[in-house]
Amino acid sequence: MSYLQLFEQHEGTLNKALDAIRSRSFYAHWPEPPSGRIYGETAQEDGLQSFKSSLNSAFTFPQKDSSGTVGSEQSPYGFPLDISYPAFSADDLIANAQSALSEWKQFSTKERAGILIECLERASKHFFHIGFSTMHTTGQGFIMAFQASGPHAFDRALESIATGYMAIDTFAESVQWTKPMGKMQVDLQKTFHVRPKGINLTIGCSTFPIWNSFPGMFASLITGNVTIAKSHPSAILPIAICIRSFQETLIDLGVNPHVIQIAIDDASQPITLDLAQRSEITTVDYTGSSSFGNHLEQVLQGSKTELFTEKAGVNCALIGEVESLDAVLDNLAFSLSLYSGQMCTTPQNIYVPKDGVKTSEGIVSFDDICTKLKEKVDALVFNEKMGPGTLGALHSPAVMSRVEKAKASGLHIIRDSASVQHQGFDSAISCSPLILKVESADQAIVHEEWFGPISFIIPVDSIQAGITAMSDSVKKHGALTTLLYLQSKELMSLAEEQLIDAGVHVSFNLTGPIWVNQSAAFSDFHGAGANPAGNASFADLSFVSKRFNVIGIRKP
Amino acid sequence: MSYLQLFEQHEGTLNKALDAIRSRSFYAHWPEPPSGRIYGETAQEDGLQSFKSSLNSAFTFPQKDSSGTVGSEQSPYGFPLDISYPAFSADDLIANAQSALSEWKQFSTKERAGILIECLERASKHFFHIGFSTMHTTGQGFIMAFQASGPHAFDRALESIATGYMAIDTFAESVQWTKPMGKMQVDLQKTFHVRPKGINLTIGCSTFPIWNSFPGMFASLITGNVTIAKSHPSAILPIAICIRSFQETLIDLGVNPHVIQIAIDDASQPITLDLAQRSEITTVDYTGSSSFGNHLEQVLQGSKTELFTEKAGVNCALIGEVESLDAVLDNLAFSLSLYSGQMCTTPQNIYVPKDGVKTSEGIVSFDDICTKLKEKVDALVFNEKMGPGTLGALHSPAVMSRVEKAKASGLHIIRDSASVQHQGFDSAISCSPLILKVESADQAIVHEEWFGPISFIIPVDSIQAGITAMSDSVKKHGALTTLLYLQSKELMSLAEEQLIDAGVHVSFNLTGPIWVNQSAAFSDFHGAGANPAGNASFADLSFVSKRFNVIGIRKP
Repeated sequence: MSYLQLFEQHEGTLNKALDAIRSRSFYAHWPEPPSGRIYGETAQEDGLQSFKSSLNSAFTFPQKDSSGTVGSEQSPYGFPLDISYPAFSADDLIANAQSALSEWKQFSTKERAGILIECLERASKHFFHIGFSTMHTTGQGFIMAFQASGPHAFDRALESIATGYMAIDTFAESVQWTKPMGKMQVDLQKTFHVRPKGINLTIGCSTFPIWNSFPGMFASLITGNVTIAKSHPSAILPIAICIRSFQETLIDLGVNPHVIQIAIDDASQPITLDLAQRSEITTVDYTGSSSFGNHLEQVLQGSKTELFTEKAGVNCALIGEVESLDAVLDNLAFSLSLYSGQMCTTPQNIYVPKDGVKTSEGIVSFDDICTKLKEKVDALVFNEKMGPGTLGALHSPAVMSRVEKAKASGLHIIRDSASVQHQGFDSAISCSPLILKVESADQAIVHEEWFGPISFIIPVDSIQAGITAMSDSVKKHGALTTLLYLQSKELMSLAEEQLIDAGVHVSFNLTGPIWVNQSAAFSDFHGAGANPAGNASFADLSFVSKRFNVIGIRKP
Repeated sequence: MSYLQLFEQHEGTLNKALDAIRSRSFYAHWPEPPSGRIYGETAQEDGLQSFKSSLNSAFTFPQKDSSGTVGSEQSPYGFPLDISYPAFSADDLIANAQSALSEWKQFSTKERAGILIECLERASKHFFHIGFSTMHTTGQGFIMAFQASGPHAFDRALESIATGYMAIDTFAESVQWTKPMGKMQVDLQKTFHVRPKGINLTIGCSTFPIWNSFPGMFASLITGNVTIAKSHPSAILPIAICIRSFQETLIDLGVNPHVIQIAIDDASQPITLDLAQRSEITTVDYTGSSSFGNHLEQVLQGSKTELFTEKAGVNCALIGEVESLDAVLDNLAFSLSLYSGQMCTTPQNIYVPKDGVKTSEGIVSFDDICTKLKEKVDALVFNEKMGPGTLGALHSPAVMSRVEKAKASGLHIIRDSASVQHQGFDSAISCSPLILKVESADQAIVHEEWFGPISFIIPVDSIQAGITAMSDSVKKHGALTTLLYLQSKELMSLAEEQLIDAGVHVSFNLTGPIWVNQSAAFSDFHGAGANPAGNASFADLSFVSKRFNVIGIRKP
């Protein structure tokens, strides 16, 4: 089969993605329920077996020239993975990438789209293996792990492919240009060529090793670049499964497998900074802490490297006026609990008017809001069917230390955290949400990110003051999300204006099965690129167009 | 008339521009001939009179809060303009801009498009005034001055408006999003808002004060930013006429005139660096020397300011194999002579195989190529009807010094430069092309830009060696243009591949009335953004999409 035939085979998928991206309407190419009816009755059990087979063994790739092994992943559910991976040196990674680039950039955009979607389709057969691997590296509950690293991540990859395709497709590839000049004319045959920036490095994070990496990788790939996925030392396996599958697919299709490489290190001998500073690396995608992100920005200053960042922020919520307080607090309690607050989109600072919240049943006092939120979290956490799976485990002991530090801050504890039992995983490190009360929005403790199950309820003088505190916080400390409960149109307009100005996405009045933590591929932009939390947005035009240039050729 | 009606009035113009941009086919909204039949029989004379009335007087703007005056422009044709302009402080410019921004960003993209095109249409009535002003600040001959600062520049502005409009229009403004979830569904009303980066500063250059400034200004404006045009102290009048007209139009339309401001200084008290470093300035467009551009990059390092550059490069040509040597050298002689080589697109380094050039009439030796090129330049320069108008005058005495320095380099002089008489302007500073011969592509003198009527003929061992020397030069020293004369398909493919890789636009085999110096709005990208000559391209998607972010709002 030719590459163009491969494109034609996937053209329907691409076109649906393009339609969704333009219209921002709902689309999911891969269904999100981890259901046997969709993915095959034995898929879950097969995936679990594959995961178990991966343990205590050596993981190998088609990728060439490894030297030694690395790997010391630890399941947050309390056991070592004991997987050894090949270590690849920066020199070998770059040599492989350069040789793959010279081939990859010769493909047409359609050919690249066909090959990349085929890679995704074949890798999607491993969704359950990837899901269990994500659970046991990040600590996510299984359903979330399946969705976040499987269908949702793959949809984000498809979104990036489609957005890059659309950007390239904006301008014609060639034209017969005729300029009339009175009685004569000038004719030129012009062609326009996509010139990729070169080699992309995507630096993965420990909590969403695939979801946060695929957008940069696939935006780079569709625009003719090759990519090196640097996995986080604590979450290698999920993306390793993907990349091994991609490389096998590429080989099967007759394409250089080094178009998509993996770089692996462990915490004792990190290679990320070294790689990122290599002059051959032309674009870097980074998701992770602000401290490392800021350092990366600093070391790349003055270089030609284009850096895309999603760093940390302080997400805010405001409970101002509500229709049904129960529905609101149910929603918020779930958002705080989901994956124990270890999402870059989890609310942290919750503003509440000090004189209480207007509800359909009258004013509810500030203190009652605090108590009721505690009760809602309790109800979820202590629900044996729902609690442990929603909370998951802590991806790192550092999160537990942070919870302890917050507890020791001396702030009033609205809800204390405690460990949560995970059936079958007695050694899981888990910890339910800690909710603290601060005195005012000025307290320094709320000006930084407390990544994990830690949130603060902050009294404000009025709803307007809360909106202003939120927009000030976003401007100064960055944020991925904001969530507001407001009823009056005037207040909603005011909030909208101030928060657009601050450069952050806004959700109003979420209740029911939709949470502020979630962003939907093809519809919601993830990250605005407009506040200190990062300069990138999945996937706007800048996210793809900065990865290539257009070169014009003119001939008579 | 409402702003939307204004949009509807100009929608046809916008749509033609959009069609041309997408297809890259020929389009010109404003005709390029400075012809009385097009622009009115008295237009040229009226424009000249307007120019004369501008002399020896005070130029004023609707723009507020000037303090003192500046201005010491000098016509390269030998007389002072004696125009005083209001000086605006950085503080006042920024205060004006901030207040205008809060209004401007509220307009819809359609409204902004309508207003901006109306601004251009009304300012286009001043094409001849602008033309004479450009002639007597930059030194361009009148026809070129008319075209470059009039129709061509205005077409580039329209191109930027359309490209920005298209980028914003890529994604829907709103959607009713419905996610099916088994027996239930989630509904969200989503809106997507263009958030401009803020205040743009466009730093103009001395040779193309409008053509090089309009793209950044109008790309900023259409995407919701306000702009401050910093004029070059030696070429204020042309853009001052435009901006006064824009501000009058804005006032007439009921829009804050400070949406488009001018900043003026003189060489003794420069304000550019001060302005560029203000934190309120969020994007900077720069055209000019590499030394100032590199300094600007350095001082803005680590800031949030997005910098778009068109710096200097070393443009290259290669005469390898030709059909008609006469036609080739006629074309090249004109390119070297046009505006005395003071274009960022003029070829400087001309590679010629040391064993001669294959022509339809046999091999012509290297030395004969040199002699014949000299004769072609002589024929143009000494043609009294064509010569002076093509060459124009030197925009600055620094160019003359550079010519003297090149002459004193000790290199063999193929064609010596000499002053050229401009009828009616006895004191014009003018100087015909200097052509020097170097020994090899390795000589350091050809590794830097010699802005002005200075070029070098460089012997190379073979055509392949010439192509490699060109691509090496582009990678190291940057270039806006390359021009190659080749006949064999293999060599053309080789050149195309190497030069795309080097990141530069390529023209092959130009003869007749189309020159490598020219780039056509809506079709040719100007600057590739892919080599050391600059990071911007008029007008690709990055050029517009980096000027705004998209903010999403979700409501049930």
